[in-house]
Amino acid sequence: MYKLLLTTATIGALATTALAQSAADTAKARRAFFSLIGYEMGTLGAMAQGKMDYDAEAASAAATDMVALTKYTMSDLFAPGTSTEDVSGETRALPAIWEDMSGFQAKGEDFTAALMELNAVAGDGLDALRPAVGKLGGTCKACHDDYRAKSF
Amino acid sequence: MYKLLLTTATIGALATTALAQSAADTAKARRAFFSLIGYEMGTLGAMAQGKMDYDAEAASAAATDMVALTKYTMSDLFAPGTSTEDVSGETRALPAIWEDMSGFQAKGEDFTAALMELNAVAGDGLDALRPAVGKLGGTCKACHDDYRAKSF
Repeated sequence: MYKLLLTTATIGALATTALAQSAADTAKARRAFFSLIGYEMGTLGAMAQGKMDYDAEAASAAATDMVALTKYTMSDLFAPGTSTEDVSGETRALPAIWEDMSGFQAKGEDFTAALMELNAVAGDGLDALRPAVGKLGGTCKACHDDYRAKSF
Repeated sequence: MYKLLLTTATIGALATTALAQSAADTAKARRAFFSLIGYEMGTLGAMAQGKMDYDAEAASAAATDMVALTKYTMSDLFAPGTSTEDVSGETRALPAIWEDMSGFQAKGEDFTAALMELNAVAGDGLDALRPAVGKLGGTCKACHDDYRAKSF
């Protein structure tokens, strides 16, 4: 997901790299990343739900920006030692992420695939946007259900 | 800066688009963006200052990630009505940004240019990295000096 690529080798490298940043800093940066994803999703969701008038340009821009964010390599944001057990109050990322990295990455790949579908149709009208946003939102929820704590 | 492109026309469009998100949400997303920039800069700065061992791969990854973030279109994050005068406590973005958008964009272009230089040499050793990080940091400071409040 998002070029996550957490193989055993990269996890070893991360354990070194992560020394530059505290676990709390890493958790904060991770939350920042998802804040940006959520911000763009907020625009798309508002359109899909009729809370904001559909605007082809704005919908396309939001989808394109989410795609741009997937080019950001997230592996350092998921450095070991940054779960709810390590930096309580700073993250909702459950230890399950690191215990089941392949499952977590699969959820991320689902997100990326749904995002690409959305990006392809975002400018094609509300009837095209709505199901694509719903599908994308479903991939967000699927990951949150398994890997994110309900609260801080 | 970062594909900011705030022409009069796009500002008009933003005034409409921004309705989907509150000024506070926009300020929060903007801070999230700069948190990510700062996170990557933190790694590079630590190496440049000798606080972290130089690592060609990690330095290149941090620079590449900053480049990836410049592909994110920031114009919606700088929607009018989101300065320190509008959402006090949520942002340090001074009204000067919107009063002098061309000057602000020029600072952003300086940042992007310095980042591209850094990205080209990040993996070439500490002696190559250090001045490039210094130059990039200078462009950060130049913008902060003019357009960012000292505190919340």
